[in-house]
Amino acid sequence: MVTVDLNSDVGESFGAFKVGEDRELMKHITSANIACGYHAGDHNIMAETVKLAIEHGVKIGAHPGFADLIGFGRRAIETSKEDIFHSVVYQINALRGFCQMNGVKMNHVKPHGALYNQAAINPEIAEAIAKAVFVTDPTLILYGLSGSALIKAGKKYRLTVANEVFADRTYQIDGTLTPRREPNALIHDSQIAVEQVLLMVQEKVVKTVDGTFIPIEADTVCLHGDSKDAVRFGMDLRVRLEREGIIVRSLGN
Amino acid sequence: MVTVDLNSDVGESFGAFKVGEDRELMKHITSANIACGYHAGDHNIMAETVKLAIEHGVKIGAHPGFADLIGFGRRAIETSKEDIFHSVVYQINALRGFCQMNGVKMNHVKPHGALYNQAAINPEIAEAIAKAVFVTDPTLILYGLSGSALIKAGKKYRLTVANEVFADRTYQIDGTLTPRREPNALIHDSQIAVEQVLLMVQEKVVKTVDGTFIPIEADTVCLHGDSKDAVRFGMDLRVRLEREGIIVRSLGN
Amino acid sequence: MVTVDLNSDVGESFGAFKVGEDRELMKHITSANIACGYHAGDHNIMAETVKLAIEHGVKIGAHPGFADLIGFGRRAIETSKEDIFHSVVYQINALRGFCQMNGVKMNHVKPHGALYNQAAINPEIAEAIAKAVFVTDPTLILYGLSGSALIKAGKKYRLTVANEVFADRTYQIDGTLTPRREPNALIHDSQIAVEQVLLMVQEKVVKTVDGTFIPIEADTVCLHGDSKDAVRFGMDLRVRLEREGIIVRSLGN
Amino acid sequence: MVTVDLNSDVGESFGAFKVGEDRELMKHITSANIACGYHAGDHNIMAETVKLAIEHGVKIGAHPGFADLIGFGRRAIETSKEDIFHSVVYQINALRGFCQMNGVKMNHVKPHGALYNQAAINPEIAEAIAKAVFVTDPTLILYGLSGSALIKAGKKYRLTVANEVFADRTYQIDGTLTPRREPNALIHDSQIAVEQVLLMVQEKVVKTVDGTFIPIEADTVCLHGDSKDAVRFGMDLRVRLEREGIIVRSLGN
Repeated sequence: MVTVDLNSDVGESFGAFKVGEDRELMKHITSANIACGYHAGDHNIMAETVKLAIEHGVKIGAHPGFADLIGFGRRAIETSKEDIFHSVVYQINALRGFCQMNGVKMNHVKPHGALYNQAAINPEIAEAIAKAVFVTDPTLILYGLSGSALIKAGKKYRLTVANEVFADRTYQIDGTLTPRREPNALIHDSQIAVEQVLLMVQEKVVKTVDGTFIPIEADTVCLHGDSKDAVRFGMDLRVRLEREGIIVRSLGN
Repeated sequence: MVTVDLNSDVGESFGAFKVGEDRELMKHITSANIACGYHAGDHNIMAETVKLAIEHGVKIGAHPGFADLIGFGRRAIETSKEDIFHSVVYQINALRGFCQMNGVKMNHVKPHGALYNQAAINPEIAEAIAKAVFVTDPTLILYGLSGSALIKAGKKYRLTVANEVFADRTYQIDGTLTPRREPNALIHDSQIAVEQVLLMVQEKVVKTVDGTFIPIEADTVCLHGDSKDAVRFGMDLRVRLEREGIIVRSLGN
Repeated sequence: MVTVDLNSDVGESFGAFKVGEDRELMKHITSANIACGYHAGDHNIMAETVKLAIEHGVKIGAHPGFADLIGFGRRAIETSKEDIFHSVVYQINALRGFCQMNGVKMNHVKPHGALYNQAAINPEIAEAIAKAVFVTDPTLILYGLSGSALIKAGKKYRLTVANEVFADRTYQIDGTLTPRREPNALIHDSQIAVEQVLLMVQEKVVKTVDGTFIPIEADTVCLHGDSKDAVRFGMDLRVRLEREGIIVRSLGN
Repeated sequence: MVTVDLNSDVGESFGAFKVGEDRELMKHITSANIACGYHAGDHNIMAETVKLAIEHGVKIGAHPGFADLIGFGRRAIETSKEDIFHSVVYQINALRGFCQMNGVKMNHVKPHGALYNQAAINPEIAEAIAKAVFVTDPTLILYGLSGSALIKAGKKYRLTVANEVFADRTYQIDGTLTPRREPNALIHDSQIAVEQVLLMVQEKVVKTVDGTFIPIEADTVCLHGDSKDAVRFGMDLRVRLEREGIIVRSLGN
């Protein structure tokens, strides 16, 4: 029996600034990564999004990022591993409060934006994040780019890890994503994107930009929720996965 | 046996901005109210201050405030009770993460600045705070101005409450503090300040600006830590209290 | 010859947080109030919006607000008149830099949200704003609620003032807007809204919620740009005004 | 006749967070670099510091930094040259408003912290800053590390430049500062520090960590104001410079 989780970044509004189609998206995903107030989200949005996830039976994870509202957490900020460790402890515990007050357990942690990208390649940053998850709750699942430094750091702390793959991004021969600045970084054809996911989930391989097939772990697929088109793609993907006999479900118990 | 707690606001630095004589102050107090990143404090300062409190055997409390760094949480901000409820849940759980990772239990919550002042007189705001404490951990002690709306709200939620008194502030006939804009709001003579505390702790009365004595509960005395002089006063007060046979100790177990 | 200005709040995005239909709105207005980074807007959005206004021949004004991104400047913050004076000097000069570097003169200043509302009724706050405009450039036009304390303060500083009226808000017998909490505060019927504007512009009167007609100055009408419907209403209003022979043009030279 | 300017970073407090001995420092310097609200400073501190500089006859410059209050502008943030260009336009014009309202002309611009360091080595960032100064006022003097990319960019825009040197930092063979992580980066002996300045100002050479003497331009010396000791060193340095017949004066007219 083949299973896969569908996750998405949600709760990224801030005060009067509205972002994303969360309400629609929640119908199609199994895990929600909720922003924690540093790159997006605020305490009201967090409270509201936790409730929305519970209503839809979607698992809740923290989505910590750099303290950079103006840059939406997408810009690397030069800092120490101690600073990252403490900032992640702060953010995930803040969200945990909203889970607990609603009687649910927080399920996972997935870093956001530049923090996610740095954690994928920088072992020190990866370890700072894994440690923050571990000291908070060692049963939390750590999401990271499939096969990345973050996944390795999670294993080192004996956390359950979730290898994340992308439907709309191409892969390089070493298993990393093709950088966005490259012309062939994105998959625009939704049919090809669906096929890539099916291959990753069913066969545990991906066809790289060089045409070679390399092994890849695909525990969870990241869906975007920034537009109605993105939500529609997620819905189509889920239907297709289920039609192929793949069980779409979250990774927590 | 008469006992009293000595509390102080600490961890109010922010990044490179240094505030307060925390290291010295910790030697003399029994309870520390740690800022949670909204009006002061940041995740690194919080981590450091939690450790400092543990080293000195000082109880740890959360010190949530308005999200107003530029105003240091001293300015009233027009907002809803829901917003206050969520902002306090966020802040106290963020701090709780640092307690937990160090293996200690958070002991209490005391709102800061304008939030403290509003909670003293506005039952809706008081209740939003008490509720945030209750849903997070009903064994947390809620600190508030002695006899205020916040103390009443805490009792309503069946929280243990701590009636806070001040050494250097005068009281009015209705038990409230004389507003700072009044010429006689502050007690500058440290001898008189010590006498006021002794009277409140031993006899449970305070002499108001009108010369009348009114009853007052004094579970905890607030000490300031913004200057070396303030710290010295706290040290002297503690010595004097102990010389009178009063047990200076925290309110938690 | 009857003339009127159509103004709108624009440039209220912030980093990746997108707000408003600025590009569409610019086609229909004659004056743009650009956020200055405190309640919304950032230096990139400001640069971009100034250029957009120039391209459309729209006059540029500063739109200073409270330093309250999370509250979008809609919440009153307790502060001093000095603080407001300095905060407005800061914001309008920051925007003036972007005007100057593009070779255009800044035309006007209109406070935002809670600052606008407070300036309408509080003479001290009104005067702090008028003074900030005066010391920056006494030829700047000061926009305020028609007949309000801000208009009076502007006149005191011998500034040119612009009495602002609203199409979709009802008026009370004393000339103030019906508070939003009242059931009849808003005009939902766009036909009635257009009629109210025509009456104010052509006859200089408005029919209050009591049914009486009171005199009102209408130098400029505020249009909303938060939705496609709002933009469409603005477009329709402009067409109707011009059909009635009213000249729609900005107040600056 | 040999002349030199003594500059210092001031106005780096923020709200209730107090930084630096500005009032004392102003007695000894000739040019003040005032923070503009992004890494430190706020509109009230800026207003106050501009007045303080005027009272002491000290020239006023803008001290723009990264929008990073928590990091005090000391951390590199990955961003575009456009973003840096706009952020510097914003900051220096905001300060210019306070100069203008006090009837003085802003004299210079010196970037802060990580922005200063990046501008010293990265030509794109250097050019973004020089361009922001140029479009604001081409008569402003641009301060940068002596001989750095920022000085070169300033010359390209035909700005007057000020080559800045440090009393307490050692130099490498290529004219750059020894990185702080190196054991010999700092000069702790104040006598040696004074000698280094005299050599740079009088002979236009500096002895590097390798023992070689290399040419260096020294238009202005940076003094620190973070402690009473730092201020005393500045005072001593000024006395010594004047005793040597060097004219200590600002670079503007």
